[in-house]
Amino acid sequence: MAPCMALWDEKEIFPVETMRKAAQLGFGGIYTQPDVGGAGLSRLDTSIIFEALSTGCVSTTAYMSIHNMCVWMIDTFGNEEQRHKYCPLLCSMEKFASYCLTEPGSGSDAASLLTSAKRDGNYYVLNGSKAFISGGGDTDIYVVMCRTGGSGARGISCLVVEKGTPGLSFGKKEKKVGWNSQPTRAVIFEDCAVPVTNRLGEEGHGFNIAMKGLNGGRINIASCSLGAAHASVLLACDHLCVRKQFGEPLSSNQYLQFKLADMATSLVTARLIVRHAAQALQDGTGNAATLCAMAKLFATDKCFKVCNQSLQMHGGYGYLKDYAVQQFVRDIRVHQILEGTNEVMRMIVARSLLQE
Amino acid sequence: MAPCMALWDEKEIFPVETMRKAAQLGFGGIYTQPDVGGAGLSRLDTSIIFEALSTGCVSTTAYMSIHNMCVWMIDTFGNEEQRHKYCPLLCSMEKFASYCLTEPGSGSDAASLLTSAKRDGNYYVLNGSKAFISGGGDTDIYVVMCRTGGSGARGISCLVVEKGTPGLSFGKKEKKVGWNSQPTRAVIFEDCAVPVTNRLGEEGHGFNIAMKGLNGGRINIASCSLGAAHASVLLACDHLCVRKQFGEPLSSNQYLQFKLADMATSLVTARLIVRHAAQALQDGTGNAATLCAMAKLFATDKCFKVCNQSLQMHGGYGYLKDYAVQQFVRDIRVHQILEGTNEVMRMIVARSLLQE
Amino acid sequence: MAPCMALWDEKEIFPVETMRKAAQLGFGGIYTQPDVGGAGLSRLDTSIIFEALSTGCVSTTAYMSIHNMCVWMIDTFGNEEQRHKYCPLLCSMEKFASYCLTEPGSGSDAASLLTSAKRDGNYYVLNGSKAFISGGGDTDIYVVMCRTGGSGARGISCLVVEKGTPGLSFGKKEKKVGWNSQPTRAVIFEDCAVPVTNRLGEEGHGFNIAMKGLNGGRINIASCSLGAAHASVLLACDHLCVRKQFGEPLSSNQYLQFKLADMATSLVTARLIVRHAAQALQDGTGNAATLCAMAKLFATDKCFKVCNQSLQMHGGYGYLKDYAVQQFVRDIRVHQILEGTNEVMRMIVARSLLQE
Amino acid sequence: MAPCMALWDEKEIFPVETMRKAAQLGFGGIYTQPDVGGAGLSRLDTSIIFEALSTGCVSTTAYMSIHNMCVWMIDTFGNEEQRHKYCPLLCSMEKFASYCLTEPGSGSDAASLLTSAKRDGNYYVLNGSKAFISGGGDTDIYVVMCRTGGSGARGISCLVVEKGTPGLSFGKKEKKVGWNSQPTRAVIFEDCAVPVTNRLGEEGHGFNIAMKGLNGGRINIASCSLGAAHASVLLACDHLCVRKQFGEPLSSNQYLQFKLADMATSLVTARLIVRHAAQALQDGTGNAATLCAMAKLFATDKCFKVCNQSLQMHGGYGYLKDYAVQQFVRDIRVHQILEGTNEVMRMIVARSLLQE
Repeated sequence: MAPCMALWDEKEIFPVETMRKAAQLGFGGIYTQPDVGGAGLSRLDTSIIFEALSTGCVSTTAYMSIHNMCVWMIDTFGNEEQRHKYCPLLCSMEKFASYCLTEPGSGSDAASLLTSAKRDGNYYVLNGSKAFISGGGDTDIYVVMCRTGGSGARGISCLVVEKGTPGLSFGKKEKKVGWNSQPTRAVIFEDCAVPVTNRLGEEGHGFNIAMKGLNGGRINIASCSLGAAHASVLLACDHLCVRKQFGEPLSSNQYLQFKLADMATSLVTARLIVRHAAQALQDGTGNAATLCAMAKLFATDKCFKVCNQSLQMHGGYGYLKDYAVQQFVRDIRVHQILEGTNEVMRMIVARSLLQE
Repeated sequence: MAPCMALWDEKEIFPVETMRKAAQLGFGGIYTQPDVGGAGLSRLDTSIIFEALSTGCVSTTAYMSIHNMCVWMIDTFGNEEQRHKYCPLLCSMEKFASYCLTEPGSGSDAASLLTSAKRDGNYYVLNGSKAFISGGGDTDIYVVMCRTGGSGARGISCLVVEKGTPGLSFGKKEKKVGWNSQPTRAVIFEDCAVPVTNRLGEEGHGFNIAMKGLNGGRINIASCSLGAAHASVLLACDHLCVRKQFGEPLSSNQYLQFKLADMATSLVTARLIVRHAAQALQDGTGNAATLCAMAKLFATDKCFKVCNQSLQMHGGYGYLKDYAVQQFVRDIRVHQILEGTNEVMRMIVARSLLQE
Repeated sequence: MAPCMALWDEKEIFPVETMRKAAQLGFGGIYTQPDVGGAGLSRLDTSIIFEALSTGCVSTTAYMSIHNMCVWMIDTFGNEEQRHKYCPLLCSMEKFASYCLTEPGSGSDAASLLTSAKRDGNYYVLNGSKAFISGGGDTDIYVVMCRTGGSGARGISCLVVEKGTPGLSFGKKEKKVGWNSQPTRAVIFEDCAVPVTNRLGEEGHGFNIAMKGLNGGRINIASCSLGAAHASVLLACDHLCVRKQFGEPLSSNQYLQFKLADMATSLVTARLIVRHAAQALQDGTGNAATLCAMAKLFATDKCFKVCNQSLQMHGGYGYLKDYAVQQFVRDIRVHQILEGTNEVMRMIVARSLLQE
Repeated sequence: MAPCMALWDEKEIFPVETMRKAAQLGFGGIYTQPDVGGAGLSRLDTSIIFEALSTGCVSTTAYMSIHNMCVWMIDTFGNEEQRHKYCPLLCSMEKFASYCLTEPGSGSDAASLLTSAKRDGNYYVLNGSKAFISGGGDTDIYVVMCRTGGSGARGISCLVVEKGTPGLSFGKKEKKVGWNSQPTRAVIFEDCAVPVTNRLGEEGHGFNIAMKGLNGGRINIASCSLGAAHASVLLACDHLCVRKQFGEPLSSNQYLQFKLADMATSLVTARLIVRHAAQALQDGTGNAATLCAMAKLFATDKCFKVCNQSLQMHGGYGYLKDYAVQQFVRDIRVHQILEGTNEVMRMIVARSLLQE
């Protein structure tokens, strides 16, 4: 993907065909079970794969990680009919999925979401809107958290909504700092009737499904930050060795050498905690959610600093779109914000510490 | 300018007419002498003006600050004929100026520049190229540092080159992370003949002129960072007070309150050192160059952090181009790099400390 | 004081005679009015004096700054009788003063203090205890905040309690990380009868007096941090130039040079905001309290980093008590905590921002 | 050890009997082979043990880690006679060891050491002095790096010098910021004759032995920092939950909660890289030395911040010697300096990156 990342960014291309090729390698459903077309790999494998892919294009890989999370949710919480209906098409990326949790009025406070789903016979009638939906408008399957019951987390259910359903529409394509190879739109429901058979799990279990999905989502997005940081360290090494100032390569500057050491140390430690959390999630250890939050917090914060420092090391070149480092900076900036802001990650970690 | 900054960024518009209106207020030659059309204000006044303007558009203000530096150089180092020929047109912004120091192979190490100017009768024949030139291609007057003598700082002279001179051409327009309301191009000299009468000051005095110009340039660019940070703090305050999560405005979160306090404290201290350095430069105190370096280092580093933290406080909205904060982040990122990277600023400060 | 600071630290000596010599220069009542023996200088002068003195010994200077704050409180809020009775003895440092606000159960939340002062004829009968009192036990005059009315800030009054008053006793001398040239003890009141004529200002005005005193106290303590940082930068410069490794002085290491530049830049900016706040306090500008909080926050945080970085530059020598730098680190560590913790400073600044 | 750490610090007690009890559990030669009395455990086991012990007393544990390094060096590089002569006595801590590398004129630049060892028959005659020797004067066995050949790393050999050898003497006991339960003295050689049979390994192999020892030493000292940080996080949790301000426990302050989350995240990531490096060292992977440097750099820097932040959370109490947190801060401050300063760690990491 690396040769295309600048073009996809500039032209805002959603690289459907490239992703389908990746899906042939199993990257459409990495931690989805094989009986519905998934690769059946572990969370740790998944992290390593997303780290590697994002060295080529963060934005595209990050979308793929969201797609994978959706497939996993259907695979894990869906019944056999649902699994076999949706997962094979998604694992092959014949169809693409979007995750619809955030609303204009509820970001960090997801449990207060307002999109309503009123039961009417064999249908739920949806009204409301979702914000910042990755893939929104260009994708086929929407995994939607909506309110089927009273206020709070226990009133939330999870529905699969297919593109083309009457009453489903989309907002304008957002213009963003980065993540430009994936479209972002609001998703709008106006008397949108969805069959009850499209509900994943029980009524009122949606928030639980959403949170379980996000544990993996946090590992995945953190992994995408690792890839960007890894690539940026390599770009910095190359630039420092090639670029000369004062008659010597920049790499002979001790200050830059030491900064590079700090960058590499940040990267290595970030990678360790991401993989540690991935393993804990795979093993289902009791503190897995806390470790996922720590990993997301630490990796996305530190990797942004690493990429931004690499940009600085490039001097004026780092500011030009001809050089990849600036795109890594722009693309991973949003990782500190989404899948729960890093402030929310601190909240999760603090709660866990003070409850002990 | 504030209502236009997003548009100028998106469409990459160089707002010539808007700048000419600003020039009517004296902003085309703020610290240029009144007898050639300048406003004759002090460095401190200049800093305050650029800080205020950059709350409206950093990129445009930053270009204007470079233009002002060029006019000041002609006003200060030019003879009467040169002053009266160029300054009035530049002060009114009938014509625009660009500063040509950096080369592809010499950024921080400006004294090693290679663009040659060989004397041939009443002309200098220029060959070489300049990189990252703000306004390059769209402006009329190029203040060019070039080599008329041997290697090192003492072989450098300063020439005024007018657009349209045969042998003067421009590279492609660079695509950049920010600073999009000003075009950036390489400036190329191929057997470009410039009259000897266009030389500012003596032969071999160019590097001295360049460095003197940069002292003011550093104050100016630091001032543009202050404006961005000031605007970003206000945007953060507004957003925190309006945006609700968990049933309360974000401003009720102690963590965000304290971060806001840190941001405001950074801004106030940055402003103090910028103005202190501006006053020192105006007064011609012995440590003015060191203070200018400190001010540029501190203000551009801290203000970037302030803007970036404000973006974080905006959550997902901070990543959308509909919100101004992301443009402040993108626009001022380059201030840590240009007019001497912040690494070069540290070098200047350290030298001063260890020589004492 | 510099030659004695290590000895005073090791032996925990309260250098009474040295301070009395300083008082002869006017340092016992720097910003106290001349008619009662004060020097009548401004807040800015005061800051500069404390900065200079603390390069010699932070701990002793810091005590002197607290003494000065007490004298100023009597001078400003006392009646003529009180002023003439106490101030001359204090300005000459014939007698020493202590400030009694903090209690074991109320640190940052000063308005909740519990020490009670019940009116009984011409006396207030005090019961309660004060914690962390600088000079406690060795000083003569205690400026005590106590509760004469209901709960909250408006129930607090300010009394002057003289050593030797029956019912006044002291806790054990605390062992501390630094600040060892001044004794710290709890101050205990058990049915301690204090004449009503010893009350400064009206009943219920004590909290207001306390807060006004603290504005100046914060400038003063910040100034003591500046002195420590200034001395530590000079010590670092000396050490780097003298100490050789790999055949060259440490000062030839670019990383250390750049760190030194950062340290000096922090020091200069910290000094600017402290002096700016001192001037604002002197001028009585509306935002003076906020600026004092910013100055205390910024200067005590940054100066600690500067001193700690200087220690690092000293290598193993920095850890030995033979070298002054470690004492600067130990002594100023507490400045981030007292006179309102830096967390409280952030609270003050944030409130001011969000009220605007 | 926890109940004694304050006393040992205050009275500067070298707790010989306590350490001998620990040696009965195998802690005198944790990674020494069992045939000479060692516990034969892995580097990872060792790290976990030192982390646990240092929650009780950093200073004592840190000395034990140096002792363990010395035993390992004799075990690994000594011949059978040397191993059986020294290791059993050291593993039981009947005798104590000190590591003598650093000299007054060569800290980071160890390869330039000057202590000379001239061959005279069956003896080496030592002249020179060593600085900052942990245990120096109170210990029995000195593992000494000295120059038997030409300049540079290849002229260095490693000798075991026993206390009581004529010509071996000690400097005054140093007064230090922390690490007070272990004496630090200069070790002085004046025509000190040491049998050639006391040489570990070949002539000229000393520097190699020293560096191999330090890889493990770095893991160990980093582990001691982990223990201090772990204890400090727990102390902070306790204090925040117990201490009330404004009518609520400090733990209800979001800012402090989030800081606590950052501290815990730093601790967990630091632990992961220390253990990762320990495993790499055990496995003998090619990048083990780089990972040891990263682990030492990251863990000692971050754990100092964690402890220092915990001190801040304790408010005024954190500055009193009655509270353990300040001792953790003082004790681990030196870990950023010794076993190679953290600046040297950055040098090692940078070299490895730029050679790749």
